[in-house]
Amino acid sequence: MSITTVGLDADDTLWHNETIFRLTHARFVELLADHGDEDVIEARLAGVEQRNLRLYGYGVKGFTLSMIETAMELTDGNLPASVTREILAAGREMLAHPVETLPGVDEALAALSERYRLLLITKGDLLDQERKLAASGLGDLFAAVEIVSEKTADTYARIFTRHGTGAEDAAMAGNSMKSDVLPALQAGAYAAHIPYAVTWAHEVADAPEGHDRYGALDSIADLPGWLEERTNGAGYQP
Amino acid sequence: MSITTVGLDADDTLWHNETIFRLTHARFVELLADHGDEDVIEARLAGVEQRNLRLYGYGVKGFTLSMIETAMELTDGNLPASVTREILAAGREMLAHPVETLPGVDEALAALSERYRLLLITKGDLLDQERKLAASGLGDLFAAVEIVSEKTADTYARIFTRHGTGAEDAAMAGNSMKSDVLPALQAGAYAAHIPYAVTWAHEVADAPEGHDRYGALDSIADLPGWLEERTNGAGYQP
Repeated sequence: MSITTVGLDADDTLWHNETIFRLTHARFVELLADHGDEDVIEARLAGVEQRNLRLYGYGVKGFTLSMIETAMELTDGNLPASVTREILAAGREMLAHPVETLPGVDEALAALSERYRLLLITKGDLLDQERKLAASGLGDLFAAVEIVSEKTADTYARIFTRHGTGAEDAAMAGNSMKSDVLPALQAGAYAAHIPYAVTWAHEVADAPEGHDRYGALDSIADLPGWLEERTNGAGYQP
Repeated sequence: MSITTVGLDADDTLWHNETIFRLTHARFVELLADHGDEDVIEARLAGVEQRNLRLYGYGVKGFTLSMIETAMELTDGNLPASVTREILAAGREMLAHPVETLPGVDEALAALSERYRLLLITKGDLLDQERKLAASGLGDLFAAVEIVSEKTADTYARIFTRHGTGAEDAAMAGNSMKSDVLPALQAGAYAAHIPYAVTWAHEVADAPEGHDRYGALDSIADLPGWLEERTNGAGYQP
């Protein structure tokens, strides 16, 4: 058995993203505090996001539009201009936010890039993801970057065939059981779950049971060793 | 000389897009008629779009956010909630708009797909472009789809190498001199300009002079014949 190709999720696997969304949520709740409790505001925002997901997809711009729409609903159409201005500013700040890689990422990726072909596989806004990759300083370590609208078994099969030697010889690592682990396993690849402190409600799913290609890691620092064990040290040299 | 690979732009080359943006512009001007003349409103919107381009990129969601921001400015912070609601609705309608292929596109693409590897190369929102391609019914004719944030000579060199036999053996066709024609020629490919009725202000550029790989076509219906002439009938059979 060999592994030639390793796919890595980006947001909340390589760098913080969810915490930035959470901070913006908190700011949003505060802005609308006169119009409802935190629970009510969060539930309404989640409902609007879910309703718009098919049209807006994932990413900061769609989230900003959903915040404005939620604020319209919560204020019964009497949305103060100052709130709209604050929401637009929050969206721009998220887009311009400095990129901070998570602990252990730089070292793990340097080690992985010596043995495997690395692919960045992520959802989100195209321009926003390209900006974050450039700002992270990790761009040169990746053989290819695939920004996709959905992560399904087909997505992984296609990407690992296009940029590698197929899903059988590939591993995927990321913080989302639903998007990174389960569909990659379904495509026939190895998959490692690397937990992040918080998980977005849309991305929660149970861990697979008794799957010999699945690994639950504590940190990305464990990924090089875990991959090594899967191939009995017969690592690929690109 | 042979041509193995043909890249095609999407918006305003294969289907209408600019007219949808123009219709939304007209609706926007009407909504804000109490706050300025058409010229003033359009100039302000163009300024906001230009300022946000680096953060928002191209596409409907960024355009919607720019419309809201422009409306805030024009109303001096007294933006009526009804206008915000109308702008959000206009954005959603653009995203959900039915896809209408331009005259001659279906026939030209069917002919081209028999001789060349076809690539869709387009800017814009990832999800929005995927939706339009699916809705157009043209998806199966393309060997690959590349949704990019900028169209530079490097972009074309990379794509024609990844999915074809390099830019030397490739041709690009589209309605934008600046994004489709000039950088593709610079990369060493053939390039055909296919005009659309209206052109977005950011995309205007002069035609290249005396370039033997450039063609100015009247319609996409002329593309198969033009490519045929470039290779003296030695068309590639994929």
